[in-house]
Amino acid sequence: MGLLGGSLGLAVNRIMPSVRRMGYSHRAETRQRALEAGAVDVVFDNPAEAVKAADLVVLASPIGVFPELMKAIAPVLPAGCLVTDVGSTKVWPMKWAKKYLPKSVVYIGSHPMAGSEQRGVEFARADLFDEAYCILTPTAQTPEAALEFLRRFWQSLHMRLAQMPAAQHDRTLARISHLPHLVAAALVNSSVMDEMLLCGKGFLDTTRIASGPASVWRDIFMTNTAEVDKAITRLVKELQTVQKKLQTGQDEAIYQWLDQARDKRNELVAKKLKRKELPS
Amino acid sequence: MGLLGGSLGLAVNRIMPSVRRMGYSHRAETRQRALEAGAVDVVFDNPAEAVKAADLVVLASPIGVFPELMKAIAPVLPAGCLVTDVGSTKVWPMKWAKKYLPKSVVYIGSHPMAGSEQRGVEFARADLFDEAYCILTPTAQTPEAALEFLRRFWQSLHMRLAQMPAAQHDRTLARISHLPHLVAAALVNSSVMDEMLLCGKGFLDTTRIASGPASVWRDIFMTNTAEVDKAITRLVKELQTVQKKLQTGQDEAIYQWLDQARDKRNELVAKKLKRKELPS
Repeated sequence: MGLLGGSLGLAVNRIMPSVRRMGYSHRAETRQRALEAGAVDVVFDNPAEAVKAADLVVLASPIGVFPELMKAIAPVLPAGCLVTDVGSTKVWPMKWAKKYLPKSVVYIGSHPMAGSEQRGVEFARADLFDEAYCILTPTAQTPEAALEFLRRFWQSLHMRLAQMPAAQHDRTLARISHLPHLVAAALVNSSVMDEMLLCGKGFLDTTRIASGPASVWRDIFMTNTAEVDKAITRLVKELQTVQKKLQTGQDEAIYQWLDQARDKRNELVAKKLKRKELPS
Repeated sequence: MGLLGGSLGLAVNRIMPSVRRMGYSHRAETRQRALEAGAVDVVFDNPAEAVKAADLVVLASPIGVFPELMKAIAPVLPAGCLVTDVGSTKVWPMKWAKKYLPKSVVYIGSHPMAGSEQRGVEFARADLFDEAYCILTPTAQTPEAALEFLRRFWQSLHMRLAQMPAAQHDRTLARISHLPHLVAAALVNSSVMDEMLLCGKGFLDTTRIASGPASVWRDIFMTNTAEVDKAITRLVKELQTVQKKLQTGQDEAIYQWLDQARDKRNELVAKKLKRKELPS
């Protein structure tokens, strides 16, 4: 139970107050805070205890902890139980689920694309998931009824659904989420504090996501290495192309390149406004 | 008169209502809008007419237009008049001032670090400059009285002053402003619309500045080529260093690198909060 797990508990309680929410954390302080925040009904210091009567299990730890959690809950998961997770990469969680979870349960990957640079159950909010996308990554073998159940679950929490194979998810997210995070961190790490102190709102916005928790992001990068690697190469190529234009004084080409970015981003914002994915 | 010129007019009027504000634009529509917004008292379609009785002249066009404006106003500038500008690079404006402005006036570069991704006098706001930094770039030859006048002018508009040589300004801004802009544009230009449409708040924040006007930013890049070039090389090196760590599975090194960025950015935000440069 952190920002996502806690927010999920609050959101479930808001929409489906009769659902009984069991929460696990290995930290006593987190368990205490989760109860105080009303994020769950009961807390456990043992993942197996928390899931033994579950209809739906949602793993919400950093991705790197999934194998350990799966191994811990595997022996006690009720037959027919649905297991999902909220991790930002999907190929590895799917592999682990296949390896560690019993055949008697169904695993489907979920990626609710909500969060912030904050961490911890004390920042949990019942509306964190509202209007955000949730990407599901079922396979050809996924039972239709379980998928429909999971779709309805996230939709009930006011999420917009998307669906794609896990590999496509990880490639797409490498480009629109993991690379931007890495770039934000690189901008900060290659800057000097005395210079950064003069910065305006632009630098702060561009680097905001770099304030996200390092353990969560390390796990994302370590479970999406190949795609993030390709995305870095792609961006470096783009930067070097524009660097060449600068070095050779191609002002018209620079203008076109900047104008293309502006048009493209404005189109993105306009489309998101039209779909009511952004406050107008 | 655009976003900055218009906002300057509004801010001056708020703080020093007895100051007479003369505005120039070559576009009739802009002149009309500036009057309607109350950004200036009188409008002119000719820069020389606008400045011929001026105590203080502020160039607020895209930087590339400065030479043309300086040539146009040079013959009519009153002796002892102070000329400044609001451009985001300072070395080239200073060179042009030396070349085109008469010896009877004083030029000092200003860079009020305020603005947004919007453009046009219709977005002008009287509080645009409040609490933002204004960097002045005098030389050893700058008359003390003129510098003091200019310092008091920007301070009256609630700006925080910094002062440094023009070359240092351009190097610093290349790192904390021009490079981030270029990176934002590169992230957008190397992305596909269908993938971007799935993005969350992180991508939108990281790329917000890419929606800025292309002509303004082309001029910034074309007048700060060497420093932006070096800043790109530096960032590419940082990205390739972390890419190597990824390729070789150095999860602990990735963690340290991400944690360093997080600490550094959090320290930046904490310092800016302490100085009341950010809303708490």
